[in-house]
Amino acid sequence: MEIHQVKQQLLLTSRLDDMGHLPVKVLKSMSGATLVALDPIGTKPGDWVFTIANSAARDAAGDKRYLTDLTVGGIIDNWQP
Amino acid sequence: MEIHQVKQQLLLTSRLDDMGHLPVKVLKSMSGATLVALDPIGTKPGDWVFTIANSAARDAAGDKRYLTDLTVGGIIDNWQP
Amino acid sequence: MEIHQVKQQLLLTSRLDDMGHLPVKVLKSMSGATLVALDPIGTKPGDWVFTIANSAARDAAGDKRYLTDLTVGGIIDNWQP
Amino acid sequence: MEIHQVKQQLLLTSRLDDMGHLPVKVLKSMSGATLVALDPIGTKPGDWVFTIANSAARDAAGDKRYLTDLTVGGIIDNWQP
Amino acid sequence: MEIHQVKQQLLLTSRLDDMGHLPVKVLKSMSGATLVALDPIGTKPGDWVFTIANSAARDAAGDKRYLTDLTVGGIIDNWQP
Repeated sequence: MEIHQVKQQLLLTSRLDDMGHLPVKVLKSMSGATLVALDPIGTKPGDWVFTIANSAARDAAGDKRYLTDLTVGGIIDNWQP
Repeated sequence: MEIHQVKQQLLLTSRLDDMGHLPVKVLKSMSGATLVALDPIGTKPGDWVFTIANSAARDAAGDKRYLTDLTVGGIIDNWQP
Repeated sequence: MEIHQVKQQLLLTSRLDDMGHLPVKVLKSMSGATLVALDPIGTKPGDWVFTIANSAARDAAGDKRYLTDLTVGGIIDNWQP
Repeated sequence: MEIHQVKQQLLLTSRLDDMGHLPVKVLKSMSGATLVALDPIGTKPGDWVFTIANSAARDAAGDKRYLTDLTVGGIIDNWQP
Repeated sequence: MEIHQVKQQLLLTSRLDDMGHLPVKVLKSMSGATLVALDPIGTKPGDWVFTIANSAARDAAGDKRYLTDLTVGGIIDNWQP
């Protein structure tokens, strides 16, 4: 898993049906890369979270059918990057 | 998932049968890398999209038998890179 | 698999139910990157470990339902980085 | 998927039985990295190809039992890197 | 797949039961990174090998239950890096 900071919700013109209804969040990695994840927890911009990738990301989103390769797994307490 | 910009359709001399009939698009990552993805949505060059990787990419293409590790998942509204 | 050094336990404000009850550890890679893994072995800060990624990480955590993409697989004897 | 150029066939002293009988090719990525892929298409050195990674690579090789994480998926027409 | 050089066997203080009894080898990538793989072939330090990652790595190790994400797939003849 990796540690990311939540930046904003992603606004989508169109998306595949099987993304479900979870919010899609833009995240920054600790090395500055931009990533996108499903958020089943309800994070706020500025929160530090850890994310789960690949096949476990689909179950983490709450349903194996969800189309994701990255899902927020938890909010980190008092993270000092 | 990651954020990419659509560049062009890829012209192929030959391809495996089980790619299906979806267009294959060349994408640029935000760090400048070149990637290739199936496009079930019908994006245009210049569109900013997010892409889904690995096992979820196959379902995202519409059929688990499709041979892909990267599929366009949605078009992003007003993205400022 | 990769070689990582254990830094600390991760304190979480909230986490998904299906992480199980294993401790979540912050690790450093040999190139300085920060990662997060489930720890079924009981490592201490400073230990050098190898980690197992992706689908095998879930079985390594002791249960295929666990939501992880990285799990500590063993402690390395006398590692000189 | 990624775009690679075919360099040469790989000569092997020994290999696992379940690689099947497909040729194993050395590829260069657009950033200069060296990779190895199964080639079910019959490419020649100098060809530009796109490659399919991870679980789809096994099906792309023609049989889910094949032991590969990267398979050539098609030859690209007139690629200007 | 990738090309790696075998450095040494890894000595482990403790490891998960389901690693099986295969030796665990430390490898160097062509870009200098350090990796760890199961070795079902019996390589020697200095051998150039190619490695298989992720789900195929488990079957390559000889048993789908083995906990690995990287397995040696074959020894390369006369590799000049």
